[in-house]
Amino acid sequence: MTNTGKHRVVIIGGGFGGLSAAQALQGADVEITLIDRRNHHLFQPLLYQVATTALSPSEIAWPIRQLVRSRPEITTLLGEVTGVDSAAKHVVLDDDTTVPYDSLIIATGARHAYFGHDDWEPHAPGLKSLEDATAMRRQLLLAFEQAEREADPDKRKALLTFVLIGGGPTGVELAGAIIELARTTLRADFRTIHPEDARVLLIEGGQRVLPNFRENLSAYALKALQKLGVEVALGQPVTQVEAGAVTYGATTVKAATILWAAGVLASPAAKWLGVEADRAGRIKVEPDLSVPGHPEIFAVGDTVTVVSNGKPVPGVGDAAKQGGRHAARVIVARLRGETPPTFRYSHAGDIATIGRSAAVIDFGWIQLTGWIGWWAWGLAHIYFLIGIKNRVSVALSWLWIYLTGHRSARLITYSEAGDKR
Amino acid sequence: MTNTGKHRVVIIGGGFGGLSAAQALQGADVEITLIDRRNHHLFQPLLYQVATTALSPSEIAWPIRQLVRSRPEITTLLGEVTGVDSAAKHVVLDDDTTVPYDSLIIATGARHAYFGHDDWEPHAPGLKSLEDATAMRRQLLLAFEQAEREADPDKRKALLTFVLIGGGPTGVELAGAIIELARTTLRADFRTIHPEDARVLLIEGGQRVLPNFRENLSAYALKALQKLGVEVALGQPVTQVEAGAVTYGATTVKAATILWAAGVLASPAAKWLGVEADRAGRIKVEPDLSVPGHPEIFAVGDTVTVVSNGKPVPGVGDAAKQGGRHAARVIVARLRGETPPTFRYSHAGDIATIGRSAAVIDFGWIQLTGWIGWWAWGLAHIYFLIGIKNRVSVALSWLWIYLTGHRSARLITYSEAGDKR
Repeated sequence: MTNTGKHRVVIIGGGFGGLSAAQALQGADVEITLIDRRNHHLFQPLLYQVATTALSPSEIAWPIRQLVRSRPEITTLLGEVTGVDSAAKHVVLDDDTTVPYDSLIIATGARHAYFGHDDWEPHAPGLKSLEDATAMRRQLLLAFEQAEREADPDKRKALLTFVLIGGGPTGVELAGAIIELARTTLRADFRTIHPEDARVLLIEGGQRVLPNFRENLSAYALKALQKLGVEVALGQPVTQVEAGAVTYGATTVKAATILWAAGVLASPAAKWLGVEADRAGRIKVEPDLSVPGHPEIFAVGDTVTVVSNGKPVPGVGDAAKQGGRHAARVIVARLRGETPPTFRYSHAGDIATIGRSAAVIDFGWIQLTGWIGWWAWGLAHIYFLIGIKNRVSVALSWLWIYLTGHRSARLITYSEAGDKR
Repeated sequence: MTNTGKHRVVIIGGGFGGLSAAQALQGADVEITLIDRRNHHLFQPLLYQVATTALSPSEIAWPIRQLVRSRPEITTLLGEVTGVDSAAKHVVLDDDTTVPYDSLIIATGARHAYFGHDDWEPHAPGLKSLEDATAMRRQLLLAFEQAEREADPDKRKALLTFVLIGGGPTGVELAGAIIELARTTLRADFRTIHPEDARVLLIEGGQRVLPNFRENLSAYALKALQKLGVEVALGQPVTQVEAGAVTYGATTVKAATILWAAGVLASPAAKWLGVEADRAGRIKVEPDLSVPGHPEIFAVGDTVTVVSNGKPVPGVGDAAKQGGRHAARVIVARLRGETPPTFRYSHAGDIATIGRSAAVIDFGWIQLTGWIGWWAWGLAHIYFLIGIKNRVSVALSWLWIYLTGHRSARLITYSEAGDKR
């Protein structure tokens, strides 16, 4: 990184927020360093489809440096940020190298969290990274394999019980995909067990699934889940998770597979900067998305909390994209001596699928459900994927599942350090 | 596994040998148990393309139980075999359950091996499983990433040096793919290093690459490799491998990435049975592929050594397929009271690619090289893949690379136990 004398923008994070900031800076007279600890941008909304064998990891992930290869002013660094020195104006990496900035955009996202119950994590893994997804895929498929070899009927029943904790979009989408995996894809593949007898239980502490959606869409989603065969338990928060068992209200269910879709915790960005954070670790940024006391530092996406139009901005991918673009525009406006724009979040809509024939979509001006919703969801997601190759590849995978019920990524792979070769 | 009174065939291994045995038993009056420690059949000839980011794991692997789902007489078990009790006639699994057989087919393959230098393994990993491939992919991509961040020119040079040990098809194909990854795919993606300056060195102890091919094809392959920019060192066996350095003859080369493509060791099947094995651990089977002293036990593929037409049968996928089919035919003939056929290996050909524009193919009656060879190789491999979905998917991936040079599976993923989330 030779100093060209240009304004130096450092972006931490190559997710929706960081990448859209980099894109919005195109043409600006700046030099950019884009830092991520992973080499790939991940399309998180489809991660549950990797976990449930419909898509393979490379269909929803792209090398970050390939995405910005045509932008010579962007240097991509694979590295773990360990801190930010806001006085010296540089970012510190894990090998103690420093990356100086004039403007900094922090878009480091969030991770699933257990809010005081970290001991639950090994028994109820969550879903944020590609590795989380392939681990979840292995756990799901191994449960059926072990059930096929299990002679004890009680143990077999527990192996064929799948519990999802959390009734937001991730929990709903996982529940629908798991029951279809059992009832359609695996139906004819076993000789001792009947995969279609698998029990899928979705536990939501609140009074309805998809609590951030309109009530009528929550009600529709509940019915669609139940029609698929998913049991839904509402209004009883989970009080205990241990190996092979989960307790909610007065009920304890034995289940070999318990998956966590209930909570997220922001990245440690607030700690790097020593600024105030809310209970979920999110920085309370100013209305222009700058960090209080640091006008040259912006934070966007799931690692911040901000109010726009009198309402808190939701933790969704599109909010991160809009935040990233806004931070870029403020930087450009300042360089030009213009008045920076105000951040106004525009909510495009809420969207979730239930299995492969129903979805709920709320664009505000129109609501879609059923198979129309599903097709709209599918087309929208193919549109948002990056590049022709992945669009064709995902469309092919979905078409194949739609026509045959076969899912093409039913692989049990192990930790590479393991000995299962 | 209820006893139906039918002849019970147990097949250990769902690779080329075991799967073709199961297919050849179609229609026979037997019940079959197919045991594998992995849930997937792997198309090993294309594994190097997963390691070098051209294909994703699910494009070359299929759930075994899905492949035999239409055969109700086949029970698939995911399990690790720990022994065979040939007196009691049952197979022992890792949970001490036993699977009784009347006829047994062992098709357990081989694994890469270091022949007295097991301490080399951590410094020079090999390629046999999907996990090996994703680990190799990570190592290759991380070398470029680390080089981009490395200030010391000597260390940077070592990071951009890639050594392949072994000049057989795997070493040749890896070398060609790695240099194209560097010179084409990654060319424009870095700002500090020039990936096209990467040094790829192929070391073969013998006097020519592809030693099992005809001499003129070895000579062609050598020229094709050199034209791509691969350095080839012949006639000097590797004498030392340590972290970051390899020694052959009087030369020591510093390289961050050293990959092993030199030797294989058979599965422990000979130990299970307590029968004689050769230096590579392979069972010396009878001409009908039965294990000496055990006419009801057959062993096929890479875990055996056998002579046919006066020549040793090579350790290639097609030989395993033919062996599996033969064992099935002997079992059927015996059940019918007919004279079992003799095993006659028919060599279909030798085939290897060098990058994405050259290949050498020897069908015996015709030899193909250059781009004609490459297209014949591509069509043959798409033909041998299982299922329409994977054929279309692989064809799409190759077409994309051919047209754009972009490889779609350039993902650095970590061991799921790791903390890189």
